[in-house]
Amino acid sequence: MRFVNVFPRLVCAGLLLLLSTALISTSAHADPLPSWQDGPTKQAIVDFVDKVTKKGSPDFVPPNERIATIDNDGTLWSEQPAYFQLFYAIDRVKELAPKHPEWKTQEPFASILKGDMKGALAGGEKGLLEIVAATHGNITTEEFNKSVKRWLKTAKHPTKKQPYTTLVFQPMLELLDYLRANGFKTFIVSGGGIDFVRVFSEEVYGIPPEQVVGSSLKARYEVRDGKPVLVKLPDIYLIDDKEGKPVGIHQIIGRKPIFVAGNSDGDYQMLEWATAGDGPRFGMIVHHTDAEREWAYDRNSPIGKLNKALDDAGKKGWTLVDMKSDWKVVFPSDKQ
Amino acid sequence: MRFVNVFPRLVCAGLLLLLSTALISTSAHADPLPSWQDGPTKQAIVDFVDKVTKKGSPDFVPPNERIATIDNDGTLWSEQPAYFQLFYAIDRVKELAPKHPEWKTQEPFASILKGDMKGALAGGEKGLLEIVAATHGNITTEEFNKSVKRWLKTAKHPTKKQPYTTLVFQPMLELLDYLRANGFKTFIVSGGGIDFVRVFSEEVYGIPPEQVVGSSLKARYEVRDGKPVLVKLPDIYLIDDKEGKPVGIHQIIGRKPIFVAGNSDGDYQMLEWATAGDGPRFGMIVHHTDAEREWAYDRNSPIGKLNKALDDAGKKGWTLVDMKSDWKVVFPSDKQ
Repeated sequence: MRFVNVFPRLVCAGLLLLLSTALISTSAHADPLPSWQDGPTKQAIVDFVDKVTKKGSPDFVPPNERIATIDNDGTLWSEQPAYFQLFYAIDRVKELAPKHPEWKTQEPFASILKGDMKGALAGGEKGLLEIVAATHGNITTEEFNKSVKRWLKTAKHPTKKQPYTTLVFQPMLELLDYLRANGFKTFIVSGGGIDFVRVFSEEVYGIPPEQVVGSSLKARYEVRDGKPVLVKLPDIYLIDDKEGKPVGIHQIIGRKPIFVAGNSDGDYQMLEWATAGDGPRFGMIVHHTDAEREWAYDRNSPIGKLNKALDDAGKKGWTLVDMKSDWKVVFPSDKQ
Repeated sequence: MRFVNVFPRLVCAGLLLLLSTALISTSAHADPLPSWQDGPTKQAIVDFVDKVTKKGSPDFVPPNERIATIDNDGTLWSEQPAYFQLFYAIDRVKELAPKHPEWKTQEPFASILKGDMKGALAGGEKGLLEIVAATHGNITTEEFNKSVKRWLKTAKHPTKKQPYTTLVFQPMLELLDYLRANGFKTFIVSGGGIDFVRVFSEEVYGIPPEQVVGSSLKARYEVRDGKPVLVKLPDIYLIDDKEGKPVGIHQIIGRKPIFVAGNSDGDYQMLEWATAGDGPRFGMIVHHTDAEREWAYDRNSPIGKLNKALDDAGKKGWTLVDMKSDWKVVFPSDKQ
């Protein structure tokens, strides 16, 4: 009986040991960031994640405090020749035009309808806000969601001729997965519209709506024909850009992230705030250096201008990602 | 060799089977809501959770859509004889008074400093907003967090003589755990201050700051002596009460909850919005009926008035929790 009792236990233990060794060695050898070129940038990311997740490490951060906030336009997907949300707004103006005969002569709508983008943007911020109000306001949240969903299914990028949601960065998708696998909660913090980004964030990035921070309009609750609805109003609630990013993070997330990534001066304050203070912190800037595979732009770009943050990255300890040399592939469709 | 190879496997399989059977039967027999009296209220909660979590059920809801939003004052902890946050504000007025000699003659501060609560509240909403601005505004978010933390450690309820965070409802703590164990993401949606509730929500309710919705002040980002800070401004950003609750949920969570709980007419619109529409939805109202163990109040209470929601609960299909008969214990300290 002794043989029968002890031997199976030994074999069980052996099997378990073999199994767990196999699992551990698999995970140790599989590269969680295969689209990132080996080198100092990738190493900096891995070193940071290792030190904050290693129990007993002086830099250990408990999982509930592992908050990562990542910009969207230019950081998770492309933003050239204009923020993709602007193309939605333009298409929406065209769709709504039959109900607004006055737009034929009223700027910035008249220029949009004539396909004159320069004229449409000539009104500066005031004109842009009018476009936002007309295309994103006075609509229920459900109608808006449906409209964006429909648009994303059919619209194609003007030069890449692909759906916008395919113009996401494969290395960043891997980074999001890698952070989550290491107990991070990943958030988008976008200058773009919060309701716009929420429509595709879960499917495309694995980030649920409740983990999206962005610019927003005010909203009003009302009961229409017995049905409760939320109406998006044509008034700005938050501009989640520049100094608005730390504010948006505070209002929606309520604590300071330890990992932040952006690509432009619009992310400066988020980087500055999140990487200041005690404890381990990681700031990352995606530098668009690849004119061949994506776009190359920084200091003088009207979209995604990267000037002050580029100057200060060194002294602030922010990690610069050189898209051309650090990324083996840019878009998921580049993968072989 | 055949015996040696096959026998241990059989024993392993047997051990695993025994182990998993033991685990399953433990979880089937352990009551996840031990402080709830058996009866129709408890059964309604369990039935709802069962049907939305059972794969193949026509009412199955995928985990990412299992959003629960729960009011705080009067639903997760007590709210009598006044919202606990008001006691914080009063103590803060007293603490700040030496720096504000003008408060000796200026209402509502003069009355607060004299201990005259009736006089302090005589100014109505305007007076309340002045108290909020003076005690919650013009302070960095870090200073505010520290101040609330310090207060919660030392302050005691005026009649119960216990720390405020002990006056939470044991059955509701169990309900939060039960929902989370069934894949729900639990959120607080409070008329109280978002930054106030976030200070203790994680420790007391297991709800992290990023899952708290509440009333808020505007905030401003600035760099003070080289240190980036967020300053709470003395201006209202959102009143997360009544029709503000669906708005707050939309702005911060970005999708409609399927499980909602409240206790007053301040929760009416949240209940109405969340329980309207397709698919399984659960609305719950905690009715304060227990003058002996807690407080008994509803239609005419100045705090936590429950009138219209009580009238409409039946026709809207909301489940009324009768605190006196449905809860075996009220506070954790009541447990034997």
